[in-house]
Amino acid sequence: MSRRTAPAIPELVARARAGEAGAVARLITLVEDASPALREVMAELSAHPGTAHFLGITGSPGVGKSTSTNALVTALRRAGKRVGVLAIDPSSPFSGGALLGDRVRMSEHALDPGVYIRSMGARGHLGGLSWSTPQAARVLDAAGCDVVAVETVGVGQSEVEVAGLADTTIVMLAPGMGDGIQAAKAGILEVGDIYVVNKADRDGAEGVRRELRNVLAMTERPAGSWRPPIVMTVASKGEGAEELVAEIERHGEWLRESGELARRRTARARREIEAIALAALRERWGDVGGRGELDQLAEQVVSGDVDPYAAADDLLLSLGPSRGATG
Amino acid sequence: MSRRTAPAIPELVARARAGEAGAVARLITLVEDASPALREVMAELSAHPGTAHFLGITGSPGVGKSTSTNALVTALRRAGKRVGVLAIDPSSPFSGGALLGDRVRMSEHALDPGVYIRSMGARGHLGGLSWSTPQAARVLDAAGCDVVAVETVGVGQSEVEVAGLADTTIVMLAPGMGDGIQAAKAGILEVGDIYVVNKADRDGAEGVRRELRNVLAMTERPAGSWRPPIVMTVASKGEGAEELVAEIERHGEWLRESGELARRRTARARREIEAIALAALRERWGDVGGRGELDQLAEQVVSGDVDPYAAADDLLLSLGPSRGATG
Repeated sequence: MSRRTAPAIPELVARARAGEAGAVARLITLVEDASPALREVMAELSAHPGTAHFLGITGSPGVGKSTSTNALVTALRRAGKRVGVLAIDPSSPFSGGALLGDRVRMSEHALDPGVYIRSMGARGHLGGLSWSTPQAARVLDAAGCDVVAVETVGVGQSEVEVAGLADTTIVMLAPGMGDGIQAAKAGILEVGDIYVVNKADRDGAEGVRRELRNVLAMTERPAGSWRPPIVMTVASKGEGAEELVAEIERHGEWLRESGELARRRTARARREIEAIALAALRERWGDVGGRGELDQLAEQVVSGDVDPYAAADDLLLSLGPSRGATG
Repeated sequence: MSRRTAPAIPELVARARAGEAGAVARLITLVEDASPALREVMAELSAHPGTAHFLGITGSPGVGKSTSTNALVTALRRAGKRVGVLAIDPSSPFSGGALLGDRVRMSEHALDPGVYIRSMGARGHLGGLSWSTPQAARVLDAAGCDVVAVETVGVGQSEVEVAGLADTTIVMLAPGMGDGIQAAKAGILEVGDIYVVNKADRDGAEGVRRELRNVLAMTERPAGSWRPPIVMTVASKGEGAEELVAEIERHGEWLRESGELARRRTARARREIEAIALAALRERWGDVGGRGELDQLAEQVVSGDVDPYAAADDLLLSLGPSRGATG
């Protein structure tokens, strides 16, 4: 609706598609800042869908995700791929600014025009991932990346979310993490397409692999479904990165041949549309200058006049007719 | 809408209000399972709002949250308070089942009828906290708890969420955590009402306090606003727990006198209503037997015919008139 005199978006998109890093950076910033130009950016990008393979990389703090992502980028570059990395910083819910630290380890790729690395704050309402992560991934896709990797700390919902965003989800474990397999049992094992046991040169790595294999073997899978491999790596030395790339490619082939790729991408678009619509509703309900309906209902809930479910019904009624009701 | 012959909810609520642990457990289960009786439970509970002080306890893995919560419960019991604890297990997004481990440390309170402890999975869509956490807290409130504590791992969004749920948010730090103050700087410092530096007998604890105090001192606060105290504890020995209880009570008084309590509770109800309404919309859009509108839009987004924002507009139009449009 509110359309300011924006920078020339079609030109920016054209320059990003030509591989100009500055244009890519500018587009992601427009997306992250929810700038008035956001809608124009998205409309322009949708006319240029790319062919990127979307990776989600997740794991508990300390398993060596950043080092592994770094090694993976090196291996992908050696295979001639253009790579985009979105590193979600979960410690920064408000500022949106990324802390340094792990990021620095990727600086060896900083001058490589075939690699685009961006740290994003996790300030959104979708849990660990910022709401703008799918949009930023779209920018990298349109900019011609062959692989777009989203790296996030796997705690709570975020590994489920990153799986929702990815074509291929890579779950990382490492020996010596108290919560390794225990956390894995509880949920991670349902989202991984590829498992990586990093720090494979340390004591206990073989035990993690064995335990992981046993748990995976107990999972019932229909015939023809993907059987997640386990890749052993020592990311700090780059060991295992080539094998990981090979498994990613093998999974990509399976996705295309099985029809699962189309299914996942539709599901992803579904979630993306839904998130945008819900954010718009939130804004409408919270409209300070408007009816303040939600505020009034909240006061009634606090005073015990109405329960939150009845209040939610009222709120939804204000949106208009639901299915079955008269239009 | 769908109202099955449910167990006698009013009777369950009456028994829970009389302090019967089995009835409390049953009600929380009904709430957690989103049972058909959920709405009746909530309607019944809203007629009996309690007077509980809601605490949020958050901090990075390893700071000793469970041990601290345990020590806090002991101190609160000594002060004659009835206590409810909801421990959110972030490693369990799917199963909803709580892992053991830290929970076991609280078993000393297991036979105390004045303490109700419940582990909840973090399976909801609101990030770290399950969507049913506010409802479960309501059950404990109605059951006559003087204090209801929600304990959650502070990574990413969850500390912000738990702050949204709580009257008083307690942020825990400890020496020797690499991410301690660094993470704090990025966001935690904006949500804490009380800071706890646990493991105060270890090297570095004084440094954490000093650094924390410096950062807090830099935060501008309007006159008359709450100045978060820092409490040093050794939770494993119960040291500092009495002081923490005193600070919690002091904050409670400030909340009531400043009018902040009413403001926070209205904001909390607002978020709760919103979350329920959004969940209902999600269900409506995803209705498999229905129009499948969201699926059709998702396919159009994948094929590049429409961008996600335009698709979200379509979805919202299907809900009926927005503000300004004709009714």
